[in-house]
Amino acid sequence: MRIARLHVPTLREDPKEAEVASHRFLVRAGYIRKVAAGIYSFLPLGVRTLEKVKNIIREELVRAGAQEVFLPAVQPAELWEKSGRWKKYGPELLRMKDRKGADFCLAPTAEEVIVDLVSRDVKSYRHLPLNLFQIQTKFRDEIRPRAGLMRGREFIMKDGYSFDVDAAGAEANYRAMYDAYTRIFSRMGLDFRAVEADTGAIGGSMSHEFQVLADSGEDAIVSCGACNYAANVEQARVPALARSAVPEGAPVARKVATPNKKTIEEVASFLGVTPAECVKAVAYLADERVVVAFVRGDHEVNEIALKKACDATALFLAEGPEVAKALGQPPGFLSPVGLPQSVRAFIDHDVLSVQGPLVCGGGEEDVHLVGVRASRDLAPHITATALRLAQVGDPCPREGCDGRLRTFRGIEVGHVFFLGTRYSEPMKATYLDAAGDELPMVMGCYGIGVTRVMSAAIEQNHDEGGIRWPFAIAPFHVGLMQLSDDPKITSLAADLERRFEAAGVEMIVDDRDERPGVKFKDADLIGYPLQVTLGKKFLDTGLVELKHRRSGEREALPVEALFARVVGLVREGLGAGPA
Amino acid sequence: MRIARLHVPTLREDPKEAEVASHRFLVRAGYIRKVAAGIYSFLPLGVRTLEKVKNIIREELVRAGAQEVFLPAVQPAELWEKSGRWKKYGPELLRMKDRKGADFCLAPTAEEVIVDLVSRDVKSYRHLPLNLFQIQTKFRDEIRPRAGLMRGREFIMKDGYSFDVDAAGAEANYRAMYDAYTRIFSRMGLDFRAVEADTGAIGGSMSHEFQVLADSGEDAIVSCGACNYAANVEQARVPALARSAVPEGAPVARKVATPNKKTIEEVASFLGVTPAECVKAVAYLADERVVVAFVRGDHEVNEIALKKACDATALFLAEGPEVAKALGQPPGFLSPVGLPQSVRAFIDHDVLSVQGPLVCGGGEEDVHLVGVRASRDLAPHITATALRLAQVGDPCPREGCDGRLRTFRGIEVGHVFFLGTRYSEPMKATYLDAAGDELPMVMGCYGIGVTRVMSAAIEQNHDEGGIRWPFAIAPFHVGLMQLSDDPKITSLAADLERRFEAAGVEMIVDDRDERPGVKFKDADLIGYPLQVTLGKKFLDTGLVELKHRRSGEREALPVEALFARVVGLVREGLGAGPA
Repeated sequence: MRIARLHVPTLREDPKEAEVASHRFLVRAGYIRKVAAGIYSFLPLGVRTLEKVKNIIREELVRAGAQEVFLPAVQPAELWEKSGRWKKYGPELLRMKDRKGADFCLAPTAEEVIVDLVSRDVKSYRHLPLNLFQIQTKFRDEIRPRAGLMRGREFIMKDGYSFDVDAAGAEANYRAMYDAYTRIFSRMGLDFRAVEADTGAIGGSMSHEFQVLADSGEDAIVSCGACNYAANVEQARVPALARSAVPEGAPVARKVATPNKKTIEEVASFLGVTPAECVKAVAYLADERVVVAFVRGDHEVNEIALKKACDATALFLAEGPEVAKALGQPPGFLSPVGLPQSVRAFIDHDVLSVQGPLVCGGGEEDVHLVGVRASRDLAPHITATALRLAQVGDPCPREGCDGRLRTFRGIEVGHVFFLGTRYSEPMKATYLDAAGDELPMVMGCYGIGVTRVMSAAIEQNHDEGGIRWPFAIAPFHVGLMQLSDDPKITSLAADLERRFEAAGVEMIVDDRDERPGVKFKDADLIGYPLQVTLGKKFLDTGLVELKHRRSGEREALPVEALFARVVGLVREGLGAGPA
Repeated sequence: MRIARLHVPTLREDPKEAEVASHRFLVRAGYIRKVAAGIYSFLPLGVRTLEKVKNIIREELVRAGAQEVFLPAVQPAELWEKSGRWKKYGPELLRMKDRKGADFCLAPTAEEVIVDLVSRDVKSYRHLPLNLFQIQTKFRDEIRPRAGLMRGREFIMKDGYSFDVDAAGAEANYRAMYDAYTRIFSRMGLDFRAVEADTGAIGGSMSHEFQVLADSGEDAIVSCGACNYAANVEQARVPALARSAVPEGAPVARKVATPNKKTIEEVASFLGVTPAECVKAVAYLADERVVVAFVRGDHEVNEIALKKACDATALFLAEGPEVAKALGQPPGFLSPVGLPQSVRAFIDHDVLSVQGPLVCGGGEEDVHLVGVRASRDLAPHITATALRLAQVGDPCPREGCDGRLRTFRGIEVGHVFFLGTRYSEPMKATYLDAAGDELPMVMGCYGIGVTRVMSAAIEQNHDEGGIRWPFAIAPFHVGLMQLSDDPKITSLAADLERRFEAAGVEMIVDDRDERPGVKFKDADLIGYPLQVTLGKKFLDTGLVELKHRRSGEREALPVEALFARVVGLVREGLGAGPA
C-alpha cells in the first residue's frame, strides 16, 4: 500500500495534555484523535491495530470454546434494577431517558443483559455449560479520564461470561479463559503477568488480573523470584510473623520532646533509631467513621486490607479539625499506647514482632514515646491484623517456596473473575438438574480492554522516537522508504510491494515528496517493526538497507537476501511471541 | 462444528409482536433476542451472518479506495450545534448529559465528527481526495420501532464520507461508491435496484437508494421495462401531458345531487363515468397552513412533490372542523371551480389534459359538478404542476426511451448522497488550493444498514418453513443431519466435517439426541443453503441425501460425489452472485 492512499496525519508537536508515551505517540503518529474528554476517533492506522487485537482475541476465545454474541450498548434500567446495580453504580454509569421517558444506560459491562438472555433460553443442565463473549463499545463516565486510551470514557471491551451447573464447571471455564488470555497476550508479543487480584465490588472468590509490565503502569504488583506467584500488591498475602516477647527488666516507656520532627525519617534520625523501629499511624474515614491504622515506619498501609478489616465500603484519608477532635489526640502524634477507647484501630502483625524497643507518637504535640514494647504497652482495644503492603524482599507467601518478592508496575489489560451466583441468584438465572431440582447457574466473567491493550503495548514498547510495535499488532510489518524517483528504484519498490503482499507481509511504501529525514522520523514514530530504505545507496552498491526498529540494528543486503530475511523475520515475529 | 457447541435456541412459536417474516424467523431460528423496543441482542448465528455482511462491505470499500476509521458513538453537542443539527434533529436524537452536565448525543450518523476530524488534519488540496468509512453502532429513537431489525432503535450502520476539492472529484467518489455498493449487494446474493431518490432533509443534489426487492418492503419503487431507469415512486418524474382544448359548444358545468356518494368510485359509478374522468381533492396542512391538491380520480398525490411545490418542511393530511372552516367548503366536496381565493391549491397536469368533461366536487354537501372543462372552469389561482405519483404503465421519463414503468416494493439497505458543501461550509472544513485560495471541501455520504441487510435478505429469501439464505451471508453453508449413532455414520460425519472444513465449506453437524423431524424443521428454519442427511438410508444403500434449501430439490449421491457436489455448489454460490 502507498502511504498517499492512507490518511496518516503525523504531528511534530506533542499534544499539550499528554502525560504518557502511549498518549503522545498515538496522537502524534496519527492513530487517534480526541473528540471530547476520554472520547476518541480511530484513524486508519488505529483501526488496523485494533482489528489485529480483536482478531487475536476472537481466535483464541473461539479455540477455547467460547461463542461470540453482540449485545446492545443501550440497556434498559429495568434489568439493572433486578441486579441491584442501577442504584449501586455511581455517576460512572451514563444514564439517559428515551423519548417516552423510560430509563436507559450506556453499558459499562453486560452482566445484566447476558444473564437475562441466558436465563430465558436455557432451562436445563443439558444446555450448560455456556461461554459467551462480545467485543463492543462500552462507556464509563470517569471523573478524570486520562492518558489517552489508558483511561477513556468510551472504549472497546471484550467481555465474556460463562454459565455452569456447579462450581467445578465454573472453575474449568475460569481455567480455560485464564489459559486463553495467556495465549492472547503472548501472541500479541507482550511481557505480562497474571496476578492474583482483589475481587472488589463485583464479588466472587477468585480473580486474576493480566498486567502488562510497564514503568508507567498504575498498578503495583509483586512476583516471586523463585516460583510463578504474582499478585497485585494490595492482594499479596504477607505472612504474620511471631509476636516478640518483652525482655526481662525492659524499662517502661517514657515521653521525649521531639520539637518540629514531623516525618518518620526526621523522628528516627533525631532519636537514633531506624524507621523499622518506629510506629507509623494513619487516620482514615471508613464509611465516615474515624479509624486508625498502625504499621511499622518502613511499611505502607494496605488500604484494601484495612477496608476489609473494617468491613467498610468506602475508605478515605481523614483530614481536618473534626478528625483531630474525634481522635482525641493530635493526628501527627497518635499513640497506640494511650489511644482513647472510642477510637477504632488496627495494628499490623509486623509491629508486634519487632524485637527491640519502639518509638511511637506521644499523644500530644511535639512528643514521642520511646522504649515502647508493643506486647506490653498497646491499648488493648487495638486489633492486630495483616495491614501492610507487600514489598520487595518479602518472603513468597506460597507454601513451601522460599523465594523473595520483586516488585513491578503494571497496566491491567485483562481480568478473569469467578462470579459464582452473584448475578444468577438475584436475576433468577436457574436451571433444572437431572433430578429436576432448580439451581442457580454458577458464573464467571472475563474482560479484556481492547483499546487499552494498544496503550499498554506502547507503554512497554517505545523509545524517544516513537512506537516499537510487536509484529502481531503493528499496523504494518514493514515501512519502505522510497527516497528517489529513479525508475530503477520506483520499479523495485513496486516489485517488492507486490511480492511482499503475496508472501503475507504487510508493507507500506512511503513515496511522498518529502525529505528523507521526514520519512525516517515518521517511520520511527509510527513504529513499523522493520524499515527498508531504497535510495542512492542502492543505485551505487545494489544493497538495500534494513533497519530493525526495536534494536536499531541495520543491515545492508542484496535484494533477494533482503526479501528472504524480511519474510523470515515477519513469520518469526508473528509466530513466536515477543518480537 | 457441532450444534451442541453452538447456542442456537430455536423456538416453535412465533413471537407475538412479529408482523414480518424476517422478524419471525430471526427470533425463532435463534439469531436475535429482544432486549427492549427496537433493541436486540445477537446470538452466535446472528453474529456469524453479521460478520459476513460486514466483511463483504469492508472488502469492496477498501478495494474502491475507501479507508476504515472508527468514530465515537457518544458525541458532544458542541459539534452538532456547529452543523445546526442539534436544534433541527427531533426526538429521534437520543440526548444525555455527562456527570459534569455537558450535553452529548448517541450518534445516528457521523457527519459532524468526521467533518471536524478531517478539517483539523487536512489543510491542502494535496491531501485530498479522502474517502473514510466506519462500521459502528448507531441509535435513532424511532417513535415506532418495528419489524425486528428492519426499523430498530439501536442498529449497526456502515457510514462513509468522501471529501474532494471540487464537484467533479466528489462525483467520481460518488460513482465509485455507487459501483462498490452494486458489487456489495451482488456478492451478498440479493436482488436489488439502485433507484433515484429524494435528497430529503440531508440536502445535496444527487442521491440513489439501493433497494432490496421484497413484497413486504416499505418503499414503492418504479423501474422501466426497457432501460435501466429506476426510482423511488415519489421521485419518479411524470412527464407533463399537453393541456386539452375545450370543444366548441361544450355546455357549461352544472350541479348534480350525489346523495351519500363518498368515494371516487361511488361517485363515478353513480354518474356513469370512470375515475379517470373525476377530480380527486386532498387537503393538507403544509407548515400548518391549509393547502389542497387536485389529481385525477385514478391517481395518487405525490406528497414529496406537493411539499416541494409548497416549499414546506412538514406536510400532514388535514382533518377536523378548523380545516373545514379554513377551506370554506365541506372537505369531501372541494371544488377546483369555485375554490375560495384564500385557499392555496395545486392541480396535476394530467387533470388538465383530460379530453372529455370532468366530474368534481360541488363545493357543498352531497353535490358534484359535471361537464367541467379544466381549461375553462378552473379557479385561476390554482397552480398546475406535476403532482401525482408515477404508476404502472406510465411512460419511462428517460429521454429517447419508449419503455413503460413497472412497480415494485423495496427495502432500502443502502443510500449514496452527493452532499456538496452542506456540512463543510457551516463547519468550516476548507482547504487551500494550488493558488493558495481557501475553498470548502465537496462531500458525499454513503450508508449501508448492516443489521437491516439481514432482515431484507430474509424478506426476499424465505418460505413458510424458514430462511433461504444466499450462500455468501448464510451462517453456515451446510447443515449435516446425523440421524443415527451407528459407528459407520458417526465416523463418516466426523470425516466429512474435517474434509469440508479443509475445503472452506462451513458445515454444522446436528448430532443432537432429537427426532429427525425436529432436526429437519430446525435446518429449514435456520436456513442453511444445503442440507445433507446421514441416516438409515446411507447404511442400506451407501447413498447420502442432499437437499437444496432454495428449490427443495433432493439428490441421493455416493459419498465422494456428494463431497465434490457440495464443494462445487458452495464455491459457485459464493462466487457467482444469487445462489
